Amino acid sequence: MGAGTIRRAMDPCDLLVTNAAEVLTLRGPVPRVGAALDDLGIEPDGAVAIRAGRIVAVGPARSIAARFAPRRTLDAAGGIVLPGFVDAHTHPVFAATREREFDLRLRGKTYQEITAAGGGIFSSVRSLRAASTADLEAGVRRHFERFLDDGTTTIEAKSGYGLNLDDELRSLEILRRVAADHALEVFSTFLGAHQMPEEFKTRRGDYVAFLGEQALPEVKRRGLARACDVFCDDGAFTLDEARAVLTAARDQGFQLRVHADELAQIGASELAAELGAASADHLCKVTPEAIGALARAGTTAVLLPATVLSLGVKAIPPARALIAARVPVAIATDFNPGTSYTTSMPLSIALACCLLRLTVAESIAAATVNAAYSLRLHDRIGRIEPGMQADLVVLARSSHLFLGYELGASRVHAVVKEGRVVRASA
Amino acid sequence: MGAGTIRRAMDPCDLLVTNAAEVLTLRGPVPRVGAALDDLGIEPDGAVAIRAGRIVAVGPARSIAARFAPRRTLDAAGGIVLPGFVDAHTHPVFAATREREFDLRLRGKTYQEITAAGGGIFSSVRSLRAASTADLEAGVRRHFERFLDDGTTTIEAKSGYGLNLDDELRSLEILRRVAADHALEVFSTFLGAHQMPEEFKTRRGDYVAFLGEQALPEVKRRGLARACDVFCDDGAFTLDEARAVLTAARDQGFQLRVHADELAQIGASELAAELGAASADHLCKVTPEAIGALARAGTTAVLLPATVLSLGVKAIPPARALIAARVPVAIATDFNPGTSYTTSMPLSIALACCLLRLTVAESIAAATVNAAYSLRLHDRIGRIEPGMQADLVVLARSSHLFLGYELGASRVHAVVKEGRVVRASA
Repeated sequence: MGAGTIRRAMDPCDLLVTNAAEVLTLRGPVPRVGAALDDLGIEPDGAVAIRAGRIVAVGPARSIAARFAPRRTLDAAGGIVLPGFVDAHTHPVFAATREREFDLRLRGKTYQEITAAGGGIFSSVRSLRAASTADLEAGVRRHFERFLDDGTTTIEAKSGYGLNLDDELRSLEILRRVAADHALEVFSTFLGAHQMPEEFKTRRGDYVAFLGEQALPEVKRRGLARACDVFCDDGAFTLDEARAVLTAARDQGFQLRVHADELAQIGASELAAELGAASADHLCKVTPEAIGALARAGTTAVLLPATVLSLGVKAIPPARALIAARVPVAIATDFNPGTSYTTSMPLSIALACCLLRLTVAESIAAATVNAAYSLRLHDRIGRIEPGMQADLVVLARSSHLFLGYELGASRVHAVVKEGRVVRASA
Repeated sequence: MGAGTIRRAMDPCDLLVTNAAEVLTLRGPVPRVGAALDDLGIEPDGAVAIRAGRIVAVGPARSIAARFAPRRTLDAAGGIVLPGFVDAHTHPVFAATREREFDLRLRGKTYQEITAAGGGIFSSVRSLRAASTADLEAGVRRHFERFLDDGTTTIEAKSGYGLNLDDELRSLEILRRVAADHALEVFSTFLGAHQMPEEFKTRRGDYVAFLGEQALPEVKRRGLARACDVFCDDGAFTLDEARAVLTAARDQGFQLRVHADELAQIGASELAAELGAASADHLCKVTPEAIGALARAGTTAVLLPATVLSLGVKAIPPARALIAARVPVAIATDFNPGTSYTTSMPLSIALACCLLRLTVAESIAAATVNAAYSLRLHDRIGRIEPGMQADLVVLARSSHLFLGYELGASRVHAVVKEGRVVRASA
């Protein structure tokens, strides 16, 4: 410092992330709706100071460096720093991959035909029920590693391949156990209403009653899930069945999420809006009327572009209409063994650009702040602002635009979770 | 061996690739057309023996292991072994990325509008002309590393951002120089007819004459390219201009390749067929009549699904109709700074499945044996058979179906070029 400046004491911090071409702060309104979705709050030549797992300052590198004396420095090497990705829709507890179904679809079989023939979700149910807990747990741990590799620091994770009390609880307990000593943060959702189990096909009402009266209370008692989801669509749960399960869940204090309007329009997103669901997911077939209902309810539209691609781009959610109507839009991987075998949010961002026509900035906001909002975790994650948890990803690219332009190449340079560096390239 | 068996001398070999769940040999007719495209010639539990850079045997692991005494073993660790990918359409010599254009397209600008405003190919021409040879060469070397990382062992590489004698020759010479000490094999193509240079806009005929009378003879004299390509489309070269350049190239002994029917149908693929071109590339707007002409001529259709995605899936080449008409179909990345910034053949394979509705096996055959055929290198690369060059990729997956199912995750375990292990995971 030159003569005449007043030297002030430097603040200590645990970690200083420096040398970033861009820090995408995502500061601004939450959720992001309308034109605001396109604003990343970019701090060029920025730095981030972290103390006790929290962000204490973000701003121009020069001013941050002048204020903080770090114990450790993470050199972003001219890359970009953004909030760790928040993946708001995943199904990571399964026993077997289903690569053959992918090929069968290319040979002309429909999703519904594969399901009707005992494939699809039912094949995952059979294999999960038969699998040992140790094997399932090892699989979940492998998937969690991949999420982190791809820059994701928080996932929403659903059960839904058990479809009986023991296997649904086992799935949720595995999520809790693996998450307990893993850097990836997990928000668990009970999805006992993923498909009607084969043993209940002729007495569907009994399964619906079981979900509301036995399964949900037990999940709640054990504290295993914060949300309840229902697959309400052609070939899955009817509107009335979904209403019964979701109403029971709401009354028991669960947050609501709905698989809605993926295969057919049966009123699922209107139901989600009516019940004040936190999210309505998929929405390939959502109508203008339902979009209006979602907007009025403030329900987040969680769009799943990798699933759209995997199913052959047959139906594309009207993302631009959702944004225009000021529905909060998030994107997620839908990681699952049937229709989206990817943990990559960078791929999902690129596909949101190419298939859903989001701008790159919109896609990134949808993958961070709005995804966190859909989980009601936005006061803690999804942005880089003082007071927020220090969940960051550093990408070895000079501009956020590469997240679209590179078509899914992630180029993760480092990942920080709660202030701890959990991935760093050599 | 048990008592009574006759011990025979083991054959020496340099490298034995063992422990593969599947070896995709691609043995069978070349090119692959019609139903044959769907046949990978899979050897389950296979092994490959290599000597002096060539494949000497492929077959069941047990019988190969009994015959060969290897100097070195490469453990495929239960993964799959296939021919190194052959990327039959790339533009790797450029000075600057164009990520902003990707975002501009999402904001409603068309490819033609961006080009007309001095962006697009013209911006790459300006930056290449201004760049130092050292910088260009360093960029090409970085791209070559990425191709190998993604399992590609041979690329077709075009000039086309110089558009004057010095810069076109410089581009091709850089390709030759970098390839000389790099494991990636390069087949060079002269693409002086990529766009009409701005300085020739009012005297287009002069540039066409320059290409045929000055540029092509000089490229030939220096031995810098084996093929000549023309971008014959709306906003690029007209049918008559393309015919003049391609005819001159054919008469001088160049193989012909044509950028055809990407943006509009102006007769480019019929021209390719008429002149006996080795390939017609893009083909988003190809007509049934032109498909018939390509089939009769035996011209390979090189389809570029990453470009289709990057441009928003507005027009999709009719891959199934091409296959049904027995046109040889190949796929490639189209790696370039404008419309496809990816070196990944695994991504291109997955996109060929999802967007073009090829089966996974068809996509893999299109990325290996048929791509090699389109370059007339099929007697040496693109298959795993005795006598073929030992170019292999090992993927850490139990079935080839993962190449589609995983939506572009490559999971490269090892890469072998001419018998040498050039990539190996820790």
